[in-house]
Amino acid sequence: MVIVMSPKASEEQVQAVIEKISEHELDVHRSTGKSRTILGVIGTRIEIDPRDMELIEGVSEVIRVTEPYKLASATWQPEPTILDIQGVKIGGGHFVVMAGPCSVESEEQIQAIAGIVSKAGARILRGGAFKPRTSPYSFQGLGENGLRMLQDAADAHGLLTVTEVMDASQIDLVGRYADILQVGARNMHNFALRKGLGRAGLRVFLKRGMSATIREWLQAAEYILAGGNKQVMLCERGIRTFEDYTRNTMDISAIPVVHKLSHLPIIADPSHGTGRRDKVPPMARAALAAGADGLMIEVHNDPEHAQSDGAQSLFPGQFQMLMREVTQIAPLVHREL
Amino acid sequence: MVIVMSPKASEEQVQAVIEKISEHELDVHRSTGKSRTILGVIGTRIEIDPRDMELIEGVSEVIRVTEPYKLASATWQPEPTILDIQGVKIGGGHFVVMAGPCSVESEEQIQAIAGIVSKAGARILRGGAFKPRTSPYSFQGLGENGLRMLQDAADAHGLLTVTEVMDASQIDLVGRYADILQVGARNMHNFALRKGLGRAGLRVFLKRGMSATIREWLQAAEYILAGGNKQVMLCERGIRTFEDYTRNTMDISAIPVVHKLSHLPIIADPSHGTGRRDKVPPMARAALAAGADGLMIEVHNDPEHAQSDGAQSLFPGQFQMLMREVTQIAPLVHREL
Amino acid sequence: MVIVMSPKASEEQVQAVIEKISEHELDVHRSTGKSRTILGVIGTRIEIDPRDMELIEGVSEVIRVTEPYKLASATWQPEPTILDIQGVKIGGGHFVVMAGPCSVESEEQIQAIAGIVSKAGARILRGGAFKPRTSPYSFQGLGENGLRMLQDAADAHGLLTVTEVMDASQIDLVGRYADILQVGARNMHNFALRKGLGRAGLRVFLKRGMSATIREWLQAAEYILAGGNKQVMLCERGIRTFEDYTRNTMDISAIPVVHKLSHLPIIADPSHGTGRRDKVPPMARAALAAGADGLMIEVHNDPEHAQSDGAQSLFPGQFQMLMREVTQIAPLVHREL
Amino acid sequence: MVIVMSPKASEEQVQAVIEKISEHELDVHRSTGKSRTILGVIGTRIEIDPRDMELIEGVSEVIRVTEPYKLASATWQPEPTILDIQGVKIGGGHFVVMAGPCSVESEEQIQAIAGIVSKAGARILRGGAFKPRTSPYSFQGLGENGLRMLQDAADAHGLLTVTEVMDASQIDLVGRYADILQVGARNMHNFALRKGLGRAGLRVFLKRGMSATIREWLQAAEYILAGGNKQVMLCERGIRTFEDYTRNTMDISAIPVVHKLSHLPIIADPSHGTGRRDKVPPMARAALAAGADGLMIEVHNDPEHAQSDGAQSLFPGQFQMLMREVTQIAPLVHREL
Repeated sequence: MVIVMSPKASEEQVQAVIEKISEHELDVHRSTGKSRTILGVIGTRIEIDPRDMELIEGVSEVIRVTEPYKLASATWQPEPTILDIQGVKIGGGHFVVMAGPCSVESEEQIQAIAGIVSKAGARILRGGAFKPRTSPYSFQGLGENGLRMLQDAADAHGLLTVTEVMDASQIDLVGRYADILQVGARNMHNFALRKGLGRAGLRVFLKRGMSATIREWLQAAEYILAGGNKQVMLCERGIRTFEDYTRNTMDISAIPVVHKLSHLPIIADPSHGTGRRDKVPPMARAALAAGADGLMIEVHNDPEHAQSDGAQSLFPGQFQMLMREVTQIAPLVHREL
Repeated sequence: MVIVMSPKASEEQVQAVIEKISEHELDVHRSTGKSRTILGVIGTRIEIDPRDMELIEGVSEVIRVTEPYKLASATWQPEPTILDIQGVKIGGGHFVVMAGPCSVESEEQIQAIAGIVSKAGARILRGGAFKPRTSPYSFQGLGENGLRMLQDAADAHGLLTVTEVMDASQIDLVGRYADILQVGARNMHNFALRKGLGRAGLRVFLKRGMSATIREWLQAAEYILAGGNKQVMLCERGIRTFEDYTRNTMDISAIPVVHKLSHLPIIADPSHGTGRRDKVPPMARAALAAGADGLMIEVHNDPEHAQSDGAQSLFPGQFQMLMREVTQIAPLVHREL
Repeated sequence: MVIVMSPKASEEQVQAVIEKISEHELDVHRSTGKSRTILGVIGTRIEIDPRDMELIEGVSEVIRVTEPYKLASATWQPEPTILDIQGVKIGGGHFVVMAGPCSVESEEQIQAIAGIVSKAGARILRGGAFKPRTSPYSFQGLGENGLRMLQDAADAHGLLTVTEVMDASQIDLVGRYADILQVGARNMHNFALRKGLGRAGLRVFLKRGMSATIREWLQAAEYILAGGNKQVMLCERGIRTFEDYTRNTMDISAIPVVHKLSHLPIIADPSHGTGRRDKVPPMARAALAAGADGLMIEVHNDPEHAQSDGAQSLFPGQFQMLMREVTQIAPLVHREL
Repeated sequence: MVIVMSPKASEEQVQAVIEKISEHELDVHRSTGKSRTILGVIGTRIEIDPRDMELIEGVSEVIRVTEPYKLASATWQPEPTILDIQGVKIGGGHFVVMAGPCSVESEEQIQAIAGIVSKAGARILRGGAFKPRTSPYSFQGLGENGLRMLQDAADAHGLLTVTEVMDASQIDLVGRYADILQVGARNMHNFALRKGLGRAGLRVFLKRGMSATIREWLQAAEYILAGGNKQVMLCERGIRTFEDYTRNTMDISAIPVVHKLSHLPIIADPSHGTGRRDKVPPMARAALAAGADGLMIEVHNDPEHAQSDGAQSLFPGQFQMLMREVTQIAPLVHREL
């Protein structure tokens, strides 16, 4: 922590701050300049709230200098984490495409879509069984039946599966069926869920919260890593801004930023990031060109009759076209499908 | 729903939209102007995703016209909801102050604070037993022991209690101790928790999510009301914006807006809304002057040694001063303490 | 400036930073801790871009510690600036109300409104002559004729005037008629205008830009103060956020924050801050309760036929009622009308 | 405009709205449903403020249906605008790279950089002569001398020029030297500048304001087009959000959105969009992959000693590498350099 004193601070005020710090058994380095004094607090083991210092008379500003995460940080693990799920690798140059419908709607639907996306080159099948809908009056998913259908369809077409877990109490159930457990954007701050997943040791796909900074997102990952679970992927899916033409504003720059700050793989979800089918291919290409480690794309065999999010689901032909573009761009940015 | 066709839309395109709507067995009213055609869809029973219509050729814009909530709406219940908790009334001109520490830390601490806030005029004691901390390495609360201490302190000083429930699985436990269950900002979108509270029939204090629009906040309330639970209060606690001097930007205008759109009481939390002790009294006065139905204020007997959020907790003397100001301003805006 | 080295930084990297700093003839204070090194740079006379340091290998973070404004800072002038315009005082406990229409529309209109607001207790008449309209096809104001009508109406009713200047080339013209020159939110970043006003020595009413931080707003004031002009007032009029029910989100907390950081008076404009007539009185009361030094309120004798912004203009009766409330609340927060 | 009545609106209230509309000599189409009435107002010639209608008793919501711009709209001109500046084409599949320093600093500097960027494949030289600096104490540019140096360097290396014009009074001067006049983000809302450029008939490069919606940006372009000037390009350079790791959040999705709404070319500026050199290449690739019509890149022969924005300027070698990547990706998205 660095404590910047006001240019008008008296010597007594400087001493009061030093005393306050020593209550915490920490060392202080003092730099006294012509215009003001700066105090460096080094070796912070316990957490001090910077605001506590800021409220002391004579203090102008307090700056926290240690990253609030460690296991997620590239400082401590410079080489990228590479997940290997039954031979499918993600991260460190290995690029993966996850595709499928918003919701599992029926045996026929998920089987048909699994066939389409597998043939086009996806390796992981997505599909929701428990749906977090904004309105209490909307379709809420097929539940455990949906999970079973998803697994069957994936098995039939040689795919892995990813699906959302909405509550700590569902971890066991969902973990019995799925290869990867998704934490949705609205649940990034769900502490019980984070803790449960840390203990469970299942692979986690952690979406960025709608208003989460990159720092908070990495802190959320830290919770899971701190529980002993190293298999975490991040997913950028758009943040909330004043611009309302798109459902969210996809923060493509988060991709190179995460690659600098962390070793964890980062996947992009342009379907939720834009909310509109016609914007998905350009944003998918953009995410890849910026260095993403994978894509999650909503695809439906009949988007116009989908029970949820049909408007952001690609038609099969659009997905095939996108996969061809992905195949062409990937080698230019050193990504291997 | 209103569907605005492009000025260049052909008659075939207009017909295609009409056909699509009739798939849903809804009525269409057509208005054909010189420059463009507008289609009004009336009597919507099932939910159509406006984006599905927007993607049809020739459609320029689609506008949803029904509010996505009904039980929470002032349209359907114009008279304000007044909660009556063992004689303490909230809403419809009845103003209440909830006060106490961020976390229950010990028997002595919570008893001391209960005495202070009760004497100054608060009617409800707040205090966290399960703490959602951003870092996995911070103090996480006293758990059930904390709940018991909170209840004991409240009983000893004639106060009611409000405390946070962090997960659907905790509802029963917390409900055994507390009079009001708080849903934190990070949990506004927790679907399992909302549903559980809808069924539980316990009083709910629903904080606005950090990036939630007022519309989404009322939809979250709708989930709880739809479960059969009518005892819901809303709490404005600041939203996330680009301004970073304050921890959040308190949206004071949400107070008159909610009063127009809904019948539910709205309480203001300037402690979380600003994150800094010296900003709490001015923002508390502002919230009252804008018509809030109550305040939630963090108060600590020794803020400088609080285990969490000491920087935003008032000293006892500051709280007493604030209560005197509140008492003076309240009658000017027709609020009765 | 404080430069935080990475925990993994080598001694060579630390030396490279020190060398880079000494290029600028500045002193470095080094604090070497167990986990990392922190470098304090003190006595910065010339400006270094912190990002230049951040890009050096081994550097983890760089923090600027000096406020980027000085003349506007409460550090250097703790006592509040009080403007005295022909006996009307603003700041330091003196509260003022500015009121009038969005645009001057005609002799009759502005005379009628001047009479209404003067009688109700306003001291300054507002009214636009040059209107910055979002659409090129909307009413653009009466120009110099409007300025003359505004001045005549103010003179006839013992009021001062405030009106917007939209471009550096208009300063002389507007300055011949108005007592206070308003810089609109869209012009806060207009450098030519700022510089011209710094030299002109006319009183300035500086609105906060729609997406300006408080820091940037004070820097904009610094530009004018640095030109030798000390008569600057600030005006909070709402910032842009994701919430779209209100036109802008009025940042009431900016009022106590500005009072802490600066000595300049701060006025609130709830008309633009909310964009809706029914939200103006609660937000005006809130701003006063939070400690504002004044209010700017749009009032029209016939809002339903106003040529611009009628929806956010109060009816005469509403304004009279608001002035009664203001008169009651002001003494409770130590403001004198 | 569509006016949605409240489900509780009385017949008198509906009639009052219809009367109000007929004051404006507009036609009303009425749709009366089981639950509510919707009024469609068609043929709007004059502008009505939707808020005026919203405030009438019984009205629930008012929706404007016409785009607030026409000349900028793809509805009225579906084929893309292609600028042809002395043989350099921009738009409609023609891709261009603009590169150069933030500021022109000296004859030697701008000549050296012009040589570097020209050789690497850029066609347009950028460089500021008048600098809008946040602090009044920073380097403010070389003025007319800078313009002359920019033109000389461009001529010597067969390049066109683009430079910023900061005020309406500068249009003539800057227009004498530069091929393209840039309107900076802080000036997007400068009405005097917009109008002057509309009349001037010079090519305009219009940056998006930091908090401007895409709609407002297109309205700003409309102002210039409405003056009779058809040669307008748009530039996405990042918007302001809560994320503060990057200087701004580059809204890559604005690229496909603008291509759908408008016929004007859209260029991306990842230097200002990210503010950090190491993030420029990935975001430049992303913008191209999303379909941008060009890039504006800051390049310096000695970034570490640049007088402004060195931290976001590429080294010559980085720019050459980026140009190679651009050359490889362009054909995959049907862009021709």
